[in-house]
Amino acid sequence: MTDIKLIKIKESIITDNEDSAELLRAELAKNKVFMLNLMSSPGAGKTSLLIATLKVLQDRYRINVIEGDIDSTVDSEKIIQNGGNAIQIQTGGDCHVDAPMIKAAIENINLNDYDVIFIENVGNLVCPAEFDTGANLKVMILSVPEGDDKILKYPLMFNVCDALIINKIDCIEFFDFDFEILKKRVSLVNPKMKIFQASAKTGEGIVEWCDWISQQIDDYNKRLN
Amino acid sequence: MTDIKLIKIKESIITDNEDSAELLRAELAKNKVFMLNLMSSPGAGKTSLLIATLKVLQDRYRINVIEGDIDSTVDSEKIIQNGGNAIQIQTGGDCHVDAPMIKAAIENINLNDYDVIFIENVGNLVCPAEFDTGANLKVMILSVPEGDDKILKYPLMFNVCDALIINKIDCIEFFDFDFEILKKRVSLVNPKMKIFQASAKTGEGIVEWCDWISQQIDDYNKRLN
Repeated sequence: MTDIKLIKIKESIITDNEDSAELLRAELAKNKVFMLNLMSSPGAGKTSLLIATLKVLQDRYRINVIEGDIDSTVDSEKIIQNGGNAIQIQTGGDCHVDAPMIKAAIENINLNDYDVIFIENVGNLVCPAEFDTGANLKVMILSVPEGDDKILKYPLMFNVCDALIINKIDCIEFFDFDFEILKKRVSLVNPKMKIFQASAKTGEGIVEWCDWISQQIDDYNKRLN
Repeated sequence: MTDIKLIKIKESIITDNEDSAELLRAELAKNKVFMLNLMSSPGAGKTSLLIATLKVLQDRYRINVIEGDIDSTVDSEKIIQNGGNAIQIQTGGDCHVDAPMIKAAIENINLNDYDVIFIENVGNLVCPAEFDTGANLKVMILSVPEGDDKILKYPLMFNVCDALIINKIDCIEFFDFDFEILKKRVSLVNPKMKIFQASAKTGEGIVEWCDWISQQIDDYNKRLN
């Protein structure tokens, strides 16, 4: 009985969220703002990768970062210290960011002031995969120390994302991580997924990744015109 | 309205779970079985640490491992390949293991055949912290590559656990991880938390950790007599 009740409510929450996400996407389109939802395990390097990304993309676009965390403001502080714009969402225990939370964050800024919004989701490979935030693109980071078998355990996240960044690639020698096995596994679950190797620390792969985002933003703006 | 509905249901699910957990703990006590719930982010090294732990503790106790995953059987296969006993739970999308799931797993074994059960929870620093599994001890792993700031972002997990294992300590030189800062932060959130430095790869710290578990099991059995 408990199971049945839980599932029904979850479905209704997810449906309500999807409606909010569609409305939010329409509002962003009206304002020609592109939004990207970045997800990963805790400590895979979302904030560091965003800082490296901002260094390249801030010359091309006006960018804001929405930082989602259960508690603390450390990530938004880091973004601001590195010259970025950031808004902090504290989910108060919730294990993911959803569309109403993003809507509330966006109400605090003027969309005319920005071209791109990055969402840094709560560090979690499970729940964030289920919730549409209203973003145009979903990207996940997998860091080398986590291992090449995560796709077997968290298939939904690998299924819903458009791109996968293998971060901390500079330390691949110290860990048991087989990039070819990972690529083969990804091709079975999500053959369209774009894969990048990167290191926020050394800068490896950051330009390729930023050029790809720029291409996605260009395509988005062409579709809007 | 959606928020209020969600919270009420969540509370009821958690209360039902707590009742199941208490019943399960009583059943384990009747059979003199000690159960430990091991939690961490994806890829922090739960399975590797369990394999290293089994190598030491299998001479002292009859052990079974309950592996919780959303999908796949890779972890239970690894445990069995390394000479352990394992049962796989697939949560089918759920982001945590709860007491009814553990109860269902335990119904598949004879409790008289075991002294100790280890639960490997779903890789997630958020949701598993909220659900009592019926275990006698809660332990979390934080791996060095995840960083020393995770306690600021996932405070509940650090609050509910009895012990913290800092795993992958062998690669501390390659990462920006300040052990003293972490210890200070832990002492503010959970001063009773026992902290271990370990490496499942090199074996560092494993004996100390295993001796500590043995002490916990001895104390548990004394309380039962």
